[in-house]
Amino acid sequence: MPTFKITVAYDGTEFVGWQRQATGVSIQGLLEDAARELAERDVTVVGAGRTDAGVHALAQIAAFTLAREIHADTVLRALNARLPDAVRVVAADEVPSTFHPQFDARAKRYRYRIWNGDVLPPFERRYAWHVPGALDVGAMQLAARLLEGEHDFAAFQSSGSDVETTVRRILKSAIADRTIADLIEYDITGTGFLRHMVRTIVGSLVEVGRGRQRPEWMSAVVESRDRSRAGRAAPAAGLFLVGVDYDVHSGFTAKDQ
Amino acid sequence: MPTFKITVAYDGTEFVGWQRQATGVSIQGLLEDAARELAERDVTVVGAGRTDAGVHALAQIAAFTLAREIHADTVLRALNARLPDAVRVVAADEVPSTFHPQFDARAKRYRYRIWNGDVLPPFERRYAWHVPGALDVGAMQLAARLLEGEHDFAAFQSSGSDVETTVRRILKSAIADRTIADLIEYDITGTGFLRHMVRTIVGSLVEVGRGRQRPEWMSAVVESRDRSRAGRAAPAAGLFLVGVDYDVHSGFTAKDQ
Repeated sequence: MPTFKITVAYDGTEFVGWQRQATGVSIQGLLEDAARELAERDVTVVGAGRTDAGVHALAQIAAFTLAREIHADTVLRALNARLPDAVRVVAADEVPSTFHPQFDARAKRYRYRIWNGDVLPPFERRYAWHVPGALDVGAMQLAARLLEGEHDFAAFQSSGSDVETTVRRILKSAIADRTIADLIEYDITGTGFLRHMVRTIVGSLVEVGRGRQRPEWMSAVVESRDRSRAGRAAPAAGLFLVGVDYDVHSGFTAKDQ
Repeated sequence: MPTFKITVAYDGTEFVGWQRQATGVSIQGLLEDAARELAERDVTVVGAGRTDAGVHALAQIAAFTLAREIHADTVLRALNARLPDAVRVVAADEVPSTFHPQFDARAKRYRYRIWNGDVLPPFERRYAWHVPGALDVGAMQLAARLLEGEHDFAAFQSSGSDVETTVRRILKSAIADRTIADLIEYDITGTGFLRHMVRTIVGSLVEVGRGRQRPEWMSAVVESRDRSRAGRAAPAAGLFLVGVDYDVHSGFTAKDQ
């Protein structure tokens, strides 16, 4: 009964998100369908976390158990042969059966891409939020840093969420210096995220960039715990799940992520 | 009666190509429809050259004449407001009415992208040819260089073409050293190209990369003038029209390209 950890990249544009739903094509559904064909029985694929419709992944992590011995390389090839080319298994490793992609995750890393030029290039239209006009990136960088540490992020959670606690630890929240003139990239790493939290943070950072708010406003929004104080959620298209980090003793080496 | 030169970027994946056709959506057709709405009369948009279905452009050049004075910036915004986001006018300039995008072109620059990793990332699936397995890039580099200069490229022309001469001058034909491990980029600049010429060259370069042919074979294929000697045409998805070069005295400066 081998358990496999798979690393999955996907272009989320045309899917309803990670989670299997009653209607629409989901990443989890595609993987379970492909695994069922391979295993000739139903397979449950567990992910490290959900991604919403339109959100992409460079390295989502998932796991499943098969009833018979198969080499990990065969699993990778067999799944890819059955998946659409918008979803690719980029690595497969056999891991201890105790491995759980969500509960064992120590941190998740996201990137958000903003296109700040006058015209959005066709090749960026699925992978960036188009924000034309002047943006004060220095102010955005200051505001981003204020989110690092442990905070109650209730103000950045979409309404209707139901979680035990809205406190999360953010290990990194930073906007890189521009390497491509019109591209702004925001990286955030945390032990966990609330629903729409990254996109609401990005929408708020853009408020700061446009000069409508000062960087310190970001801390005031956090302290308010009031969703109506934060900016609007940025579009899904700019968001990428970059990776999920695990302890080395989870049964595989750090290089797997 | 101002004449406008426009620089157009497009993701060619979902179009039948540059040229307006009886059925299907073409880039030329989209631009003419958008220009007609702006001009409130029929407008003919002339391009620097055709691109096939699925071929992309970073900077295709086209021109058209309007019956009334409009500022070039207004033309850019008005066209983009009417075009799908897979097609963007990235620059618009008023030029002398004598300007002709095709006849005045001194050179065209193309790039072809090959993904040489085991797994094609979802984000590359529309923009690269997936060629897994070992490729001798050094041999491909040598073969590419053999095409520079003036040659009869009849062997690299798709059958059924009807042109006066199959002699073309290639100013640059080079595979860059890899900067991303799995990506091979081929750049070719020439005064003109035959139908499917770039893609047939790339298909032939991959034959050399796979070790099925030696680099010198490239010259033998050119000399043969025999289409059956060259490799198969590489897929459209990897091909980008990068730019079109004009003399500065065509009425605008070199930086426009």
